[in-house]
Amino acid sequence: MKRFYNHRDTLVAEGIDGFLRSSTGHHLCRLDGHANIHVVLRRDWDKSKVAIISGGGSGHEPAHAGFVGKGMLTAAVCGALFASPNVDAILAAILEVTGDAGCLLIVKNYTGDRLNFGLAAEQARLLGKNVELVIVADDIALGRGPHARGIAGTVLVQKVAGYRAETRASLAEVKQAAADAIKGTVSLGLSLSDVNVYDPEHKTRLNEKEAELGLGIHGEPGTERISVDKLDVLVSKAADTLVRHLTDGQHVIMLNMLGAVPVLEAQAVVDALYRNSIADRIDFLIGPAPMMTSLDMYGFSLSAIPVRANFIEALQSPVEPWAWPGITPFRDLQTRPTPSLPETFTYQPSSDPYMRNLITRGAKVLIDNEKDLNALDAQIGDGDAGSTFAEASRVILKEIDRLPLASPKELCETLGRLLARNAGGSSGVLLSIMFATAGQEKSWRKGLEAGLERMHRYGGASAGDRTMLDALFPAIAALQNGNLDQAAKAAREGADATRAMPARAGRAAYVPKEQLKNIPDPGAEAIARLLEGISEIS
Amino acid sequence: MKRFYNHRDTLVAEGIDGFLRSSTGHHLCRLDGHANIHVVLRRDWDKSKVAIISGGGSGHEPAHAGFVGKGMLTAAVCGALFASPNVDAILAAILEVTGDAGCLLIVKNYTGDRLNFGLAAEQARLLGKNVELVIVADDIALGRGPHARGIAGTVLVQKVAGYRAETRASLAEVKQAAADAIKGTVSLGLSLSDVNVYDPEHKTRLNEKEAELGLGIHGEPGTERISVDKLDVLVSKAADTLVRHLTDGQHVIMLNMLGAVPVLEAQAVVDALYRNSIADRIDFLIGPAPMMTSLDMYGFSLSAIPVRANFIEALQSPVEPWAWPGITPFRDLQTRPTPSLPETFTYQPSSDPYMRNLITRGAKVLIDNEKDLNALDAQIGDGDAGSTFAEASRVILKEIDRLPLASPKELCETLGRLLARNAGGSSGVLLSIMFATAGQEKSWRKGLEAGLERMHRYGGASAGDRTMLDALFPAIAALQNGNLDQAAKAAREGADATRAMPARAGRAAYVPKEQLKNIPDPGAEAIARLLEGISEIS
Repeated sequence: MKRFYNHRDTLVAEGIDGFLRSSTGHHLCRLDGHANIHVVLRRDWDKSKVAIISGGGSGHEPAHAGFVGKGMLTAAVCGALFASPNVDAILAAILEVTGDAGCLLIVKNYTGDRLNFGLAAEQARLLGKNVELVIVADDIALGRGPHARGIAGTVLVQKVAGYRAETRASLAEVKQAAADAIKGTVSLGLSLSDVNVYDPEHKTRLNEKEAELGLGIHGEPGTERISVDKLDVLVSKAADTLVRHLTDGQHVIMLNMLGAVPVLEAQAVVDALYRNSIADRIDFLIGPAPMMTSLDMYGFSLSAIPVRANFIEALQSPVEPWAWPGITPFRDLQTRPTPSLPETFTYQPSSDPYMRNLITRGAKVLIDNEKDLNALDAQIGDGDAGSTFAEASRVILKEIDRLPLASPKELCETLGRLLARNAGGSSGVLLSIMFATAGQEKSWRKGLEAGLERMHRYGGASAGDRTMLDALFPAIAALQNGNLDQAAKAAREGADATRAMPARAGRAAYVPKEQLKNIPDPGAEAIARLLEGISEIS
Repeated sequence: MKRFYNHRDTLVAEGIDGFLRSSTGHHLCRLDGHANIHVVLRRDWDKSKVAIISGGGSGHEPAHAGFVGKGMLTAAVCGALFASPNVDAILAAILEVTGDAGCLLIVKNYTGDRLNFGLAAEQARLLGKNVELVIVADDIALGRGPHARGIAGTVLVQKVAGYRAETRASLAEVKQAAADAIKGTVSLGLSLSDVNVYDPEHKTRLNEKEAELGLGIHGEPGTERISVDKLDVLVSKAADTLVRHLTDGQHVIMLNMLGAVPVLEAQAVVDALYRNSIADRIDFLIGPAPMMTSLDMYGFSLSAIPVRANFIEALQSPVEPWAWPGITPFRDLQTRPTPSLPETFTYQPSSDPYMRNLITRGAKVLIDNEKDLNALDAQIGDGDAGSTFAEASRVILKEIDRLPLASPKELCETLGRLLARNAGGSSGVLLSIMFATAGQEKSWRKGLEAGLERMHRYGGASAGDRTMLDALFPAIAALQNGNLDQAAKAAREGADATRAMPARAGRAAYVPKEQLKNIPDPGAEAIARLLEGISEIS
């Protein structure tokens, strides 16, 4: 198990202090003096409004400390990993932030949280504090009975209650708003992995083809084991189940990421939602963002709350906590047409049998060498050098009837644009630059020299850097006073010389030297083979 | 490989559209009409200021599209996964957003990006656009030579340039600001994993004990393979290397997360930085946040830029993109003393040999049964039921001389507070609630009944829900007119009956029914064993 932590037992305290030192938690403070009391609270709190406290086990960051700040929570009580905070910690939070306006505790429906928050509330009342408590049970995985868990929908409840408190509502009104939000909120999770709570001996219960639907955020097994599938299928599994629990009318959907999902995939989940039939029921979207995570779980959860004026007003209000990702109308993708781009073929096609033969032969050489060059590249790079040259060749062959073959200048210009547009990889663009520059000169010999100089300038590589320039430099020099045959020989010598060169440009620069030993640069090798191939017909 | 995607080739387009539909990208739009052109841009852009364009391969989200918006980028050009965008895409972006004030391209130092952005800039100039280009090479892993890569520090350059453009600076001034930021910025990455670019056959190059320092963001191997270690050691490895590349004076540090690290661990990294000697060189912190990720890489990078008035002014200015996590002075953790909590021992200790014997014996029974009850719990829960009871027992034994043993009422009250404060787990709090309530009644028999009712109310469990209540209900009923012996028998029958009960509360409620078969509830079993144990001495 490779993870970033010093010790399981110190991680929560270190995480909280790190958060308070971070640019997203710097407006907060914490209570000090007890090793087992972790309470994060607003620094600017003056007790003039109803305080909102939430909390629970840690391991769900940014929940709950990340949602402390003007407009949401007043304080968060953080337990150990996946364990309820103790009564003293909760009581300390209540005593610290509760003024005459009172305090609302927002508690997720787990036995430990119910008991500790409940007992703390009792003790606070004995001490004269006006405390109310609501229990969030949004998870529909086990049905909406008394044992439904509180999961990501808790954040929606915190946002609604936080807004009402901010508007100076009474404790009764804030509690009612929270209760309304709780009644309306449903959630469901889906994950490709379970969670490892820093147990080096942890064995996952899922194999490579298994995922879970209806899972909790503390490592409880999902209610349904499902097959791993394409994103759209997985999103359907979750959305189709959730939709059956929606009340009539339109909804706000919150997309919560569970911890280990890359940002790109989180964004793709939104697009998958848009393609799903649930999209017809969604008027607003919150996220995607990690809000109620489960450490390193590779999953997401969907939460829904009905579109009602009071909920929307509350959810749209700006808040201080950075972890809140805002809300937006759902069907709002705007596009603009791509501006007109220069035409590729601006010259009349013209014919020249020799040039046509030369180009056809050159393209064939590169296509024939595709696998060979890929294999060479695979030893030191990403293994696509051959395909890049072959693809460029195929593009040229396909368009050969549209090329102005009779004019070297027009041909170079057109090839430059064609390659810029259609050839992949660095080598395609480098050749495009060479042709485009060559096309600006009257003499094609001088043109090729000028093109080489531009390749060097844009690409940043010099002679001896182990790139295709090491074949092109000698070949084009030989061409100035010689023929294709001499150029081919010079290219071959240049390519062979790269076997002994250290890499100083491109991807190979990151490969250990020993690994490069005696392998020619695939780009230089391609140039040598190309020239050798076409010199045979000249 | 379990990941959220439909197909490698469609992921980038789906991710971009998802982002534009999300609550964090809804203020943006994209160019439409070409399958290979992915350009995200500001919707509100009026071309009155210098445009800032950045881009590169995808797989680094939120970079770069996530940083498009007022105050930072005007547009982002997104290539395929880890592959430079093509010339047409970059050219389209330039043509769409560039007005008379001109346009700055911020390019990371990779051959593909240099070439494509360079060629696009050339073509745009031919079309009359005023375009400048800067190349970011902040990665110190390969030294600060011409082949240093552009990594997370690019975001700092974008922020500085974006601010200058927002203040209506000229293109030359914006370019100079970007060049200054580039010159000052250094970065270094550390990862526990490599990256899998959606290759189901991917084999990691790192074993379970290996990490890498000085890695790129495209899966290139790190320059140094290091041993996995505690967080503080790993942070030292990165910070000690980075510090050698800092210029004199104080710095801003940006903590970028690479993709798969849980939020809690990201926060812990900040705290580790604070303990490292590099902290003396840090005046400001940005993050932690995923800014320049590498898909699912489990790592982070540190970037540094000197504290200079112009940089700080630029970095502190508010911006529209949500992905920017703000900046904060680094040594700013504030605390408040924990408010005074009620005393545990409010009564004079008193002695009663019988009660002392009863308590000692009961505690010993629970301590002796610790392993047994844990093993029972491991089959259906998290395996700590025995430890919870044993720990509560140890606490009581430790404090037995401070207990008011001679007064049942005072004893119950004190035990309630003692357990609330020191016992872990739900069962500890439940017993605390029972004792605290019992302590409020004159008759201890009635008190125990009242306590039971509170346990039910706070815990949410009823008789038959497979909890310790199923032993306590019959035991305390038997005590009303009987003795400990009868109570023990009733508790044993109650505990045995839980073997056939479905779980409806606590963690066991999430365990499949078949798995529970014939296993008694560990809490009920503990109560039965406790009463059986102490009845022998009564």
